[in-house]
Amino acid sequence: MQNGIKPTLYTDRTPEEYADARLMNTVAHHHVTTEREDALGCNHWPSDEFGYFGHYYYIGTPEPIEMFGDLARPSRAVDYRIYQPKLLKDFIERGGEVVYGPVEREMIEGISDAHDLTVVCTGKGPIGQMFGRDDRFSPFERPQRMLCVGLVKGITEPETRAVTMYFSPGAGELIEIPSWSFNGWCNALVLEKQIGGDLEILAKTKYQDDPRAFLDLLLEKLEKHYPTLYARIDREEFDLANSPLDILQGGVTPTVRQTCTTLDNGKMAVALGDVHAVVDPVLGQGANMASYAAVILGEEIVANDVFDQRFVEKFDTRRHDRVMSGTRWTNYMLENLAKLDPTLLEFIGGMAQSRALTDQFTEDFNHPEAQWDIFSSPERVRATVARMALPMAAE
Amino acid sequence: MQNGIKPTLYTDRTPEEYADARLMNTVAHHHVTTEREDALGCNHWPSDEFGYFGHYYYIGTPEPIEMFGDLARPSRAVDYRIYQPKLLKDFIERGGEVVYGPVEREMIEGISDAHDLTVVCTGKGPIGQMFGRDDRFSPFERPQRMLCVGLVKGITEPETRAVTMYFSPGAGELIEIPSWSFNGWCNALVLEKQIGGDLEILAKTKYQDDPRAFLDLLLEKLEKHYPTLYARIDREEFDLANSPLDILQGGVTPTVRQTCTTLDNGKMAVALGDVHAVVDPVLGQGANMASYAAVILGEEIVANDVFDQRFVEKFDTRRHDRVMSGTRWTNYMLENLAKLDPTLLEFIGGMAQSRALTDQFTEDFNHPEAQWDIFSSPERVRATVARMALPMAAE
Repeated sequence: MQNGIKPTLYTDRTPEEYADARLMNTVAHHHVTTEREDALGCNHWPSDEFGYFGHYYYIGTPEPIEMFGDLARPSRAVDYRIYQPKLLKDFIERGGEVVYGPVEREMIEGISDAHDLTVVCTGKGPIGQMFGRDDRFSPFERPQRMLCVGLVKGITEPETRAVTMYFSPGAGELIEIPSWSFNGWCNALVLEKQIGGDLEILAKTKYQDDPRAFLDLLLEKLEKHYPTLYARIDREEFDLANSPLDILQGGVTPTVRQTCTTLDNGKMAVALGDVHAVVDPVLGQGANMASYAAVILGEEIVANDVFDQRFVEKFDTRRHDRVMSGTRWTNYMLENLAKLDPTLLEFIGGMAQSRALTDQFTEDFNHPEAQWDIFSSPERVRATVARMALPMAAE
Repeated sequence: MQNGIKPTLYTDRTPEEYADARLMNTVAHHHVTTEREDALGCNHWPSDEFGYFGHYYYIGTPEPIEMFGDLARPSRAVDYRIYQPKLLKDFIERGGEVVYGPVEREMIEGISDAHDLTVVCTGKGPIGQMFGRDDRFSPFERPQRMLCVGLVKGITEPETRAVTMYFSPGAGELIEIPSWSFNGWCNALVLEKQIGGDLEILAKTKYQDDPRAFLDLLLEKLEKHYPTLYARIDREEFDLANSPLDILQGGVTPTVRQTCTTLDNGKMAVALGDVHAVVDPVLGQGANMASYAAVILGEEIVANDVFDQRFVEKFDTRRHDRVMSGTRWTNYMLENLAKLDPTLLEFIGGMAQSRALTDQFTEDFNHPEAQWDIFSSPERVRATVARMALPMAAE
């Protein structure tokens, strides 16, 4: 218990149960997020040891474009089956109370009766749907990519430890993330498959049905669409990193929900994290947005003694621009990468001409509101490219 | 011209024309506002010479309540017929361009064609109405008080140079503001008359028709409703401070308008100041909100090179909480003073018990969002009063 607050966490998983669980996600924590962990004393994976240092970009146009951008400070990806139980133990050690067991929609009012404020930060289905959809920020009715996400071994590290973002026009994106899991270093491969494209079959083929057949199909598709990745693969060693649980397939409908809801007992419940704003993983924004919002929520809980509409308004005002910018930027990229939008191609062309622009684009994965300052209109994209091109013209 | 920005001001008044104009308002600049003027190098009336230091409060209940609260740093009221032309000259001296002449609604598109961004900060009638009413923050359809506002001489200063806020239940509020005008020190009297109350006649009686009759009526009403003010009046000297132009009568319908509008040429026009949010003057928030928003707008103009929806969103997000808090707090006080709301009376009772609470309430005229943190719900008012009462209980 800190700051006079006595929090209780309701979860269906004990710290011990994570080790045998299926892969939960493939999440990179940007340095804005690891710095928040430093401040809270829960960064157990310092970035000088566990971090990566930039982004490679591979655009699979007829003349492929390859670029690299630096992060100002490293990012870090740790398997959430290691991360979550460790932070749960931190919470318990510091006096937080945990109630284990399934949480159903019908239990929320009872939980709320026992506390000053209820925060809902997970819950597909009825619990999440307590919060109405916010149509202003929810342009899609269905997933924009089919996802096949796995932790794999057998990929040689590139020159710099870095994420690589691959784009195969008409097929989809692939994000390769150097990640720390049960057996040490491995790579997360996030396959973002355009619906109806050549890669979609990877969302439907099951590893567990025939591991070798799945791997062969995956290798065939990687060779065709992502040849520079394929060139770094040791076919003999290439497999899931730990076990058949290291793979996750599906799709996400990007959705923003209302900030809060009033329960039957008159108290407020606040939506946080994925319940508030769930994004496609293509830009790695979801967990970082959630961490940002969670720390602000904590600060506002400490600063207020009444948890009413004004409390929620103040909290939501503070998180709004980053979370909605992360959401809109992600949705913009999903849409405009798929349709090869000329303005976006102009920006990519600008990156190819300007290392400074590539560095800025890379570093600003930390600052989605700065990305939205660029991508929110064609005029802004053009102004940015022109501004970054100026120093070269002056040389 | 500073920061690479070349501003043009369209106004119907030259600096020379202010001296002969009717009183424009009675505005106090709180220290957050004079500090903005210091930063911009346009504070020509330093508060150590021109300032006042706190608020007296007089509640005309059967047992009158009198209180005093300190401001952390002084506020200052200068006649806008002195203030505005001086700042207009500053603007011109620094290279700002001014176009003199009437500005009509039909001219706005033409003005917009010649500039990157159009900011509309004054304009009753059609110019203001370009921006649609924001019903979420506009609860009233008509003025909540009839106003009679004047600059007067013949009032002895109280012990401390300070504003006095008087409240006469059923009749209305009176705000006395030590002000600097053409003849030096005088007092602004802001009579906020409840509609249908005993003071309403003062909104309809014209000074110019018969000055002596008007002054006698005013003195009769002050004696009845605001006896502690009346006791400081020298009846012989009491009159308008400079001339018959020192009085203004009417009423304000508190209204919030949309942040921006898209003109026929596709460009944005932004609403600022009274065009965006006009409040009743009872709490002296209007000009301070406008100054706050204007400086933020200037910062955002410098920080952005495209003036589109995203620009407006960023600007509006930054001004929103203070401007809407000033608006909502003012509307709250209008409504709840008139109906003698028990929760508000509880707060006033708390002030009478706690000098610290009276000081905080006084200083937070600088920070309307802190006032709204208190007055936005009865629970918050009670929590504040309870919190401030604690140190006394511990003694």
